Amino acid sequence: MSRILIQNATIIPMTSKEDIFQGHIYIEDGKIVRLYNKREREEVSFPLEMTDLEIIDGQDKVVIPGLVNAHTHAAMTLFRGYADDLPLMEWLNDAIWPAEKKLTDEHVYWGTMLAIAEMLKGGITVFADMYFFMDQVAKAVSDSGIRGHLSRGMIGFGPTSEKALVESEEFYRKWHEGADGRIRVWLGPHAPYTCPPDYLQKVMALADRLGTGLHIHLAETKKEVEDIQKEHGLRPIELMNKIGLFERPVLAAHCVHLTEEEENILVEKKVGIAHNPESNMKLASGIAPIESLRQKKAIVGLGTDGAASNNNLDLIEEMRQATFLQKVNLLDPTALPAYDTLAMATIGGAKALGWDHEIGTLEVGKKADLAVIDMKQPHLYPVHDPVAHLVYSAKGSDVHTVIVDGKVLVRAGKLTTMNEEQIMTEAQKAAVVLTSKEG
Amino acid sequence: MSRILIQNATIIPMTSKEDIFQGHIYIEDGKIVRLYNKREREEVSFPLEMTDLEIIDGQDKVVIPGLVNAHTHAAMTLFRGYADDLPLMEWLNDAIWPAEKKLTDEHVYWGTMLAIAEMLKGGITVFADMYFFMDQVAKAVSDSGIRGHLSRGMIGFGPTSEKALVESEEFYRKWHEGADGRIRVWLGPHAPYTCPPDYLQKVMALADRLGTGLHIHLAETKKEVEDIQKEHGLRPIELMNKIGLFERPVLAAHCVHLTEEEENILVEKKVGIAHNPESNMKLASGIAPIESLRQKKAIVGLGTDGAASNNNLDLIEEMRQATFLQKVNLLDPTALPAYDTLAMATIGGAKALGWDHEIGTLEVGKKADLAVIDMKQPHLYPVHDPVAHLVYSAKGSDVHTVIVDGKVLVRAGKLTTMNEEQIMTEAQKAAVVLTSKEG
Repeated sequence: MSRILIQNATIIPMTSKEDIFQGHIYIEDGKIVRLYNKREREEVSFPLEMTDLEIIDGQDKVVIPGLVNAHTHAAMTLFRGYADDLPLMEWLNDAIWPAEKKLTDEHVYWGTMLAIAEMLKGGITVFADMYFFMDQVAKAVSDSGIRGHLSRGMIGFGPTSEKALVESEEFYRKWHEGADGRIRVWLGPHAPYTCPPDYLQKVMALADRLGTGLHIHLAETKKEVEDIQKEHGLRPIELMNKIGLFERPVLAAHCVHLTEEEENILVEKKVGIAHNPESNMKLASGIAPIESLRQKKAIVGLGTDGAASNNNLDLIEEMRQATFLQKVNLLDPTALPAYDTLAMATIGGAKALGWDHEIGTLEVGKKADLAVIDMKQPHLYPVHDPVAHLVYSAKGSDVHTVIVDGKVLVRAGKLTTMNEEQIMTEAQKAAVVLTSKEG
Repeated sequence: MSRILIQNATIIPMTSKEDIFQGHIYIEDGKIVRLYNKREREEVSFPLEMTDLEIIDGQDKVVIPGLVNAHTHAAMTLFRGYADDLPLMEWLNDAIWPAEKKLTDEHVYWGTMLAIAEMLKGGITVFADMYFFMDQVAKAVSDSGIRGHLSRGMIGFGPTSEKALVESEEFYRKWHEGADGRIRVWLGPHAPYTCPPDYLQKVMALADRLGTGLHIHLAETKKEVEDIQKEHGLRPIELMNKIGLFERPVLAAHCVHLTEEEENILVEKKVGIAHNPESNMKLASGIAPIESLRQKKAIVGLGTDGAASNNNLDLIEEMRQATFLQKVNLLDPTALPAYDTLAMATIGGAKALGWDHEIGTLEVGKKADLAVIDMKQPHLYPVHDPVAHLVYSAKGSDVHTVIVDGKVLVRAGKLTTMNEEQIMTEAQKAAVVLTSKEG
């Protein structure tokens, strides 16, 4: 039986702003068993002499639920910084797609491991991934100890569209609830402009047969909206609503270009929205109406998108980006306040992934997925409001300890289950092959 | 004589994109004495046996000119996270101004030391500061070893307006070229809305008598533009141009709300612009037309502004913010490319501060102010384009070594001249006093 006690920390459970307290968290066999405040701890005769108890000193530290990266393409770390400052279609046609064509399963494994190393060190305990060679992504999740919400990307035309359905089902049957329950598999129809309605009908039928959800890109660019409107006479969200996509769990990445009516559809249908501010900024896609969606009580999580369009997987930075972007866009400094931004990065993401019964808050009975942040640093001083510091001042590198499923995966900033040196070497080898102009 | 050799590094001198090379930098008595490429180093019989030579291993590291923080109020670290998500006037009236009224010289010293600790660790080697109790700021610059471009803030009405002129002159005479030439003093008229034209005339006369420049806030908010226009019939830049402000060196912070005509004035008059994207976002001031100014070859540097409106002093993050914000605002992913953004944070800032004859690039004869960044980290892998990685992926915490005036002030991420623990303790004490609701 594994036991962990984090003591004397500032604990931000993300159940409500009023629940922030000074105290202790006791973890047993992967679950949160008890939250104590400072006084209680003295009253409980706690068996500190247990030999298998790991004690983590929470002095000058803040504990939050593990950050939820609600949308990424992890293995795209391999293309980080490979081709920037380009128009979107040139970036895809001349750089990303030619490189992706050369991808092998081994590349995807190491690219994903690189992403997981970065994410864990930055306090991310679960990521929603859509990519190819997903067996390798699942293996990386299994090997590293992180939690994964995995979808094989499906393109609805061309020779591989039927294969995508078959392989998605195989992948579901092989890995759903795998790695001690740390993996959940949804289907991954790429987007309305790559998956026509008749194909989406097949995807929906498969999802319903398996009893799972869908992860899809929606309304990312103006061009997408115009193209879909031209072809179908409806905007992307309207079209998806009409064909019944939202009648099951859906994780919709981006949702940048929305009408009021479309916002209302997303709220009413309880669609999980993955907001990716840095990617939307870097690719110049636009600014999603997140403050409006928040006020309507939409389910919104926060994602990094892939490292080729970000170019890092730092969800703390992404929080800052999210709130700053709303404030400046609306010319309203009160937009998207710090606590609500942290909620997006934790419980909001957990809800968007349909996983909030197990993760997203620090509550007794939930999985022990959490991040401990070291606040004793010049850029986090003086101590005023810990939530404001996390959102407005902190960096991914301030993460001290990360626990997933009750296991310490980052201890004092170092990975415990991954060989960082080997991962960087193998990722570098892969990148050289993928981006070589020959062959 | 102090000697430093940084060897086998990727060196980005910021003289031109083509000048990036693999090699070595040799520093003697505070200045860059030689830049070698890899081959040259073998050919030169370098006296490695010198006992006072510090050798810094540049393997997997990138060397850039020290980052120039072109606009801040350093001691406002004391108010970091104290009052966020508020409307501007409520923030100033109810939180910042009441707290600032209680400021003592000791508070300013420790707040500035806290800022310097953070800035140095993030690769900033010089900062342009406008605040009060500037003797203490100069003392902190002197004690820490950083470089400072200092201005006493001047308010042009009320009982202290004349005192501000007297004290500014005293401060200039005491500290200009002080701390071994690491301090330069300019005058700091706060803004057009706090310094009427007749007062600015007095400030200009003083500046000309001393032979120095002016650091001022210009066109930060829409309200400022409207108020100035109502009162004077001209927009802020137009008004400043009309009264002749730009006939001497001027460092103009913000410049958010500009007409084409005003952009042209700033370019023509060679005004140094300090762009502060995070502050402009957080306070919801607006988006400065930086890409347009860049294309017109304006002098643009990058600043963090104070930590109460940012809330950190991380210029690497600020670079990312600057380019992302231009891209998304113009819906153009090619706007403000990575190299030009790094130029803003280095040589652009040096020019804006009127200090580019000594700092801002890595060139033989210039002051040895530089930052060494450790690129061997998951979030900076694989290795493609080091400039892209610095701007799009890196964090302040990736800074490994910082040299100012030929002295190592950060070694392996640790401050060498400052007691971090003491600074945090003293800053905390000050913050408690300043933000207490009593008295």
